[in-house]
Amino acid sequence: MRTLLLNPRDLEFLLYRWLDVEALTKHPRFTEHSRETFDAVLALSAEIAETHFAPHNKKADANEPRFVDGKVELIPEVATALRAFAAAGLPGATVATELGGIQLPAVVAQASFAWFHAANTGTAAYPFLTIANANLLIAHGEQYVERFVRPMLEGRFFGTMCLSEPQAGSSLADITTRAEPQGDGSYRLFGTKMWISGGDHELGENIVHLVLARIPGGPAGTRGISLFVVPRFLVGEDGVLGERNDVTLAGLNHKMGFRGTVNTLLNFGEGTHTPGGAPGAIGYLVGAEHRGLSLMFHMMNEARIGVGLVAAALGYTGYLKSLEYARGRPQGRAKVGADPASPQRPIVEHADVRRMLLAQKSYAEGALALVLYSARLVDEQRIAETEDERRRLGLLLDILTPIAKSWPSQWCLTANDLAIQVLGGYGYTREYDVEQHYRDNRLNPIHEGTHGIQGLDLLGRKVTQQGGASLLALDARIRATLDAAAAAGGEAGALGAGLGTVWQRVVEVTAGLFASGDIEAALANSSVYLEVFGHTVVAWIWLEQYLAAAEGEDAFHEGKRQAARYFHRYELPRTGAGLELLASLDRTTLDMREEWF
Amino acid sequence: MRTLLLNPRDLEFLLYRWLDVEALTKHPRFTEHSRETFDAVLALSAEIAETHFAPHNKKADANEPRFVDGKVELIPEVATALRAFAAAGLPGATVATELGGIQLPAVVAQASFAWFHAANTGTAAYPFLTIANANLLIAHGEQYVERFVRPMLEGRFFGTMCLSEPQAGSSLADITTRAEPQGDGSYRLFGTKMWISGGDHELGENIVHLVLARIPGGPAGTRGISLFVVPRFLVGEDGVLGERNDVTLAGLNHKMGFRGTVNTLLNFGEGTHTPGGAPGAIGYLVGAEHRGLSLMFHMMNEARIGVGLVAAALGYTGYLKSLEYARGRPQGRAKVGADPASPQRPIVEHADVRRMLLAQKSYAEGALALVLYSARLVDEQRIAETEDERRRLGLLLDILTPIAKSWPSQWCLTANDLAIQVLGGYGYTREYDVEQHYRDNRLNPIHEGTHGIQGLDLLGRKVTQQGGASLLALDARIRATLDAAAAAGGEAGALGAGLGTVWQRVVEVTAGLFASGDIEAALANSSVYLEVFGHTVVAWIWLEQYLAAAEGEDAFHEGKRQAARYFHRYELPRTGAGLELLASLDRTTLDMREEWF
Repeated sequence: MRTLLLNPRDLEFLLYRWLDVEALTKHPRFTEHSRETFDAVLALSAEIAETHFAPHNKKADANEPRFVDGKVELIPEVATALRAFAAAGLPGATVATELGGIQLPAVVAQASFAWFHAANTGTAAYPFLTIANANLLIAHGEQYVERFVRPMLEGRFFGTMCLSEPQAGSSLADITTRAEPQGDGSYRLFGTKMWISGGDHELGENIVHLVLARIPGGPAGTRGISLFVVPRFLVGEDGVLGERNDVTLAGLNHKMGFRGTVNTLLNFGEGTHTPGGAPGAIGYLVGAEHRGLSLMFHMMNEARIGVGLVAAALGYTGYLKSLEYARGRPQGRAKVGADPASPQRPIVEHADVRRMLLAQKSYAEGALALVLYSARLVDEQRIAETEDERRRLGLLLDILTPIAKSWPSQWCLTANDLAIQVLGGYGYTREYDVEQHYRDNRLNPIHEGTHGIQGLDLLGRKVTQQGGASLLALDARIRATLDAAAAAGGEAGALGAGLGTVWQRVVEVTAGLFASGDIEAALANSSVYLEVFGHTVVAWIWLEQYLAAAEGEDAFHEGKRQAARYFHRYELPRTGAGLELLASLDRTTLDMREEWF
Repeated sequence: MRTLLLNPRDLEFLLYRWLDVEALTKHPRFTEHSRETFDAVLALSAEIAETHFAPHNKKADANEPRFVDGKVELIPEVATALRAFAAAGLPGATVATELGGIQLPAVVAQASFAWFHAANTGTAAYPFLTIANANLLIAHGEQYVERFVRPMLEGRFFGTMCLSEPQAGSSLADITTRAEPQGDGSYRLFGTKMWISGGDHELGENIVHLVLARIPGGPAGTRGISLFVVPRFLVGEDGVLGERNDVTLAGLNHKMGFRGTVNTLLNFGEGTHTPGGAPGAIGYLVGAEHRGLSLMFHMMNEARIGVGLVAAALGYTGYLKSLEYARGRPQGRAKVGADPASPQRPIVEHADVRRMLLAQKSYAEGALALVLYSARLVDEQRIAETEDERRRLGLLLDILTPIAKSWPSQWCLTANDLAIQVLGGYGYTREYDVEQHYRDNRLNPIHEGTHGIQGLDLLGRKVTQQGGASLLALDARIRATLDAAAAAGGEAGALGAGLGTVWQRVVEVTAGLFASGDIEAALANSSVYLEVFGHTVVAWIWLEQYLAAAEGEDAFHEGKRQAARYFHRYELPRTGAGLELLASLDRTTLDMREEWF
């Protein structure tokens, strides 16, 4: 199958040559699997993505969800695609077989999912939100598995995450949705939730909302937030659907991109419906009272890596499409002094077009590699033999998560921008795909924690936690790669030496920020820190790929090595200016006064 | 009038305090003018932009031009706005009074036009294309002034520029539209033109196309291209409209942004109409045979500065709107350790939001200043006393034009991206303006010469022309500013010293590129050069503004100085990595092979 969604050869390289995913099959959890079963899932994913998701990507963009006769109307291709997805068992890709899942490693599941995001991330959002919801309930709401999780895995129910409120987006401490205990173990919820993707539609029999709310009498701030399951239709113990719950659509958001995914404002408990004869949305507690945010954040880490995957997939398909265009579009002559009467040559021959393609390749393949590396850590953590090993892997995942979320969101968006530029005027039209990829991808630096929030998370929390244990865990991994590069010598040694110098500077500057004792100045440029840190981490990921590709003689491996060179020569040096700024504890933004703007 | 389009206080500062535009009124060409007449035009522009352009910006975006019953249908607000624009005499803003114009300096006219682009660049495109067309004919087609220019200045006719063809966008050498001499001084044109903004509509009585085409028998490449006036309807010597010319709409382009501006594929001479009883679009030569491209490029420089103005205006209004939002949106608490029960604070208090606002301020105000500086050079050139002075000003304009076009297009697009980010999820919705500003602005790095073309123009032509005379002319201006900064001492001196070091390095690296003798390697990273050069030039523009604001004690001047500091601390150091790359004559893109992608 010829495809412009992802490069299967690259997936093969990343999964088997680099990440040695086959090694996971030695563990009891994955012993039923083999490279053959992994490949079968990946091939099926590619086929379903090409056949059922990609063809309506543009149509869904041009025909947004509408509210018609009290119902949200989507184009019919969405439901067809989701049936094919469910029929392949993919909602349960990582779920244990005893729950009906495929019990795949997370790293293989993410590779599978990348196909759907590259094909049509607007449609893919429905099952992936559902999967995140199901995973949370499997981990923390065992009592709800039969009633809610199984139907979600079967594709009959869909799931949402209801966190934000109109007055509380980034600041979850300020949510006000109220959950009143009913004395029978259930609660009634009252409040409004904003930005709820998949919040209302007719794709399945039911929608299972996971909702953050406050039980009256709890502490203020984030320590008084609890988590609830709130279904659109109540479900009996026997699984039979009952009354309509008091959850109503208050409005649709009309977005720049991601238009295929209905995005809603939902009212809980406004009394439009009266389940059990009273207003209030009936909900069921997940986990302990007031402990909801930590449960949600447990899943949030998975969701953030998932955002990185979406961004990487969109960057990747934009790269392949602009490459295809550059190979086929004759325009001018790259050679200086060429005869103007000679035929025009494909633009891929122009140095500046190659720069834009190499940049995209380094961003998209670098981002995908980073996300798959993170996903493999999730697998390692799950099958860790000792508590200590699990803890160390957790520390590493903690520090990589803000990078895996933010870096692809920033740079694969840049990749999509470059894809538009390669296509020129054509890229700016909706007749081609790339402008939509840009618009879709533009959401990723915003949702699941903005870019700024990721910077604060990295510098204000992850880098310092447990006396810098996360930073040390990452340092150990990076140094192991640097050692391997030094041992390999030659170009690998030189690339490693360059990265080693930058990484050392990152560590020193980090220490210097906190040594100052001025926490306000230390955190003022946390976004700059995030970007410097991210570029350094991805330079490491590229050195890893360089080493894994070192012995290959064919065009694919040559390309990997050239992209690694590109990243180390063009991208890694960008960190210099940011590091100097950080080291200076610059106060420009702090000293700025509001009235001076 | 309260406005979020531009800051009138900043216009006042740039025009009068910094650029001393009043000094121009001493020259005979502008002697009828005074600060009062300038201010009256600017105030009227602001009012018309707010009243007639801004209100339908979103509506025009959501209701693209459609082809209905053989005609292009626009929303009616467009024609109303253009009538108000014409009634104010603005199509003739810079045109001599004897032709009915206002005879304003270009710098004042650009400041006036910025209001319309900030308000609604899709609608503003119609008159501004017309103005560019009229200016070209006034300069090079005197015989067409009565028949075509006057009606354009009166707002009865509209104009286009027809350069690109489907197979020839960036490579104008490869256009194939044919112009056959008819023996009576007229020509018949046959061919297809692509990306023609304003190519077909019913806004006025006629559309005047300026078309590049080849007269058979001429040289290949760019030296065989001639320029023609091709009206949609033929016009008699008496000004009466005659037959429909053989120019037909072949298709509409559907774009990411700029949706209010109809963008067309036009067929010339396909025989749909038979003016004078025969197929072929009747056209009239402008200037000499085969000399069309240089005439078009004369106007192209004006058009490129105009693109910079559009980008600056869109960046500017996005900045003001995100600032307004940041002041009014409470979210979280900026202070570390704040009581979670205390009220939420406006996001403008967060350091990272201030960083995003300062960046936007430095990009938007820096870009507008750069464009106005360039426009003032156009005025100086026009009123130069000696041929030598005119030539020196031309050299300076030559080297600044690719920067004035590309820098605002790149960085005010980044500003719009930051505006979206400041608004978060709201910024991603079409309920707010900023995502449209981004989409509209995304055209600017593409049209009128892509970013890559600007890089080649700067490094491959402008920097080296006449033995580096353009570079020396710019060097003299920059050194004068550095001297003034050194004389001022204190912070100005320090900022100047920093800029001086970078500028010296730019000059050295430029020399080193060509000293290598490897022209292919020298030009391989021309886009990187363009970006390094642009950031350095804008750092100089910011130092100029710093000096002009040095004595001001109020919030406005404090803000100017803080934005200058921001640009010198956060932005100027970005040049370091690019300069090192250029100095190394890096061959990564040249060594990349197509099959390795």
